[in-house]
Amino acid sequence: MQHFSIDTIQSWDRFYRGNFINCLSGFKSASLIGTVNTAGVTNLAIFSNIIHLGADPALIAFQNRPTAAAPHTIANIEATGVYTLNHIHPSFVDKAHQTSAKYAAEESEFAAVQLTEEWRHNIHAPFVAESNIKYALSLVEIVPIQHNNTFLVIGKLTDAFVDESCIESDGYLSLEKIQSVTSLGIDGYYNVSKVARYNYAKPGGMAEEIWDKNI
Amino acid sequence: MQHFSIDTIQSWDRFYRGNFINCLSGFKSASLIGTVNTAGVTNLAIFSNIIHLGADPALIAFQNRPTAAAPHTIANIEATGVYTLNHIHPSFVDKAHQTSAKYAAEESEFAAVQLTEEWRHNIHAPFVAESNIKYALSLVEIVPIQHNNTFLVIGKLTDAFVDESCIESDGYLSLEKIQSVTSLGIDGYYNVSKVARYNYAKPGGMAEEIWDKNI
Repeated sequence: MQHFSIDTIQSWDRFYRGNFINCLSGFKSASLIGTVNTAGVTNLAIFSNIIHLGADPALIAFQNRPTAAAPHTIANIEATGVYTLNHIHPSFVDKAHQTSAKYAAEESEFAAVQLTEEWRHNIHAPFVAESNIKYALSLVEIVPIQHNNTFLVIGKLTDAFVDESCIESDGYLSLEKIQSVTSLGIDGYYNVSKVARYNYAKPGGMAEEIWDKNI
Repeated sequence: MQHFSIDTIQSWDRFYRGNFINCLSGFKSASLIGTVNTAGVTNLAIFSNIIHLGADPALIAFQNRPTAAAPHTIANIEATGVYTLNHIHPSFVDKAHQTSAKYAAEESEFAAVQLTEEWRHNIHAPFVAESNIKYALSLVEIVPIQHNNTFLVIGKLTDAFVDESCIESDGYLSLEKIQSVTSLGIDGYYNVSKVARYNYAKPGGMAEEIWDKNI
């Protein structure tokens, strides 16, 4: 176990430091965000900081980098108010990562990386046809994070599209059954395998495993 | 692929709905947050919404539920300004989950679930000795999320303690080597296995795998 002070960490070159700090906080739920601009050009971009904010109301957020570094998705969301989040699977994780390249605003990442646009009735943003689980959000608020010029983009859930094979009897979604990946750092992607699910914990005992038991 | 509108989702009972929506956004980086109150009583609580906000400055956030539901950790952080985040491994995931029980303020979860307090020089919050990777944060700002009375607690990194076996030559931390778990929903925990790491993506090509190649 090695100790690194922030002074040591800040002395590293920015790529080494960026990898280290990006990994330190652990695994993330990378997803592809689909939007369209007012000229009708679709956009698809990978985001790793997806945040469950609450179930009632159903709010999901993501962090957007400074607009100079990541301009298109947030501009489209501000213009249309609608966006989709699409899970990533091993069969197209290379294409998903490739959406992080800086394509011009008039070029659609769907065409560039060869993922398939999917449109659903009354939802004015494109989904990824290859995703086994995806959902649409309606913009609620963009909260500026003043310390590093990033933004917390908060949306409310309007529609979910879910492969039935992962839906358990209590509403839990066994994402390992449909091979949703998790991400680490800025460029790592992982499959998962279940360890356990536990019951609602109360003082005085120890958490009990519920997988394949109560559900 | 089944479609669920928000009207359908809102008609479900709150446990089913909570599981569904909590899983929809994907895997999370559950960690144990260690704090101490002004009376010297330590606290340990599991949080799943850990967010990498940025590498320069090194900012990491977590979401705290409404204070009535989750009062101790945030109160301790406000009082002392210091807290630790500790990764969770399969060998103690049951104990980690058990910290979500509503223990009284005067009872330490370290003792209740039998995890070991570890104190480091000049860091006034307890670490979890059993964690292979852990870090200390200093409070920067608590941002209220007005839509559901939750809080985004932003901290700056001051110290990291990392098992050397996971540190790659480019600063990436191969968390699968030290078995950090990822979480899903409110009660699911997973091991990971690597799919790929990719190079920095540029337009005109396709992401190239770099694992075991360039690093």
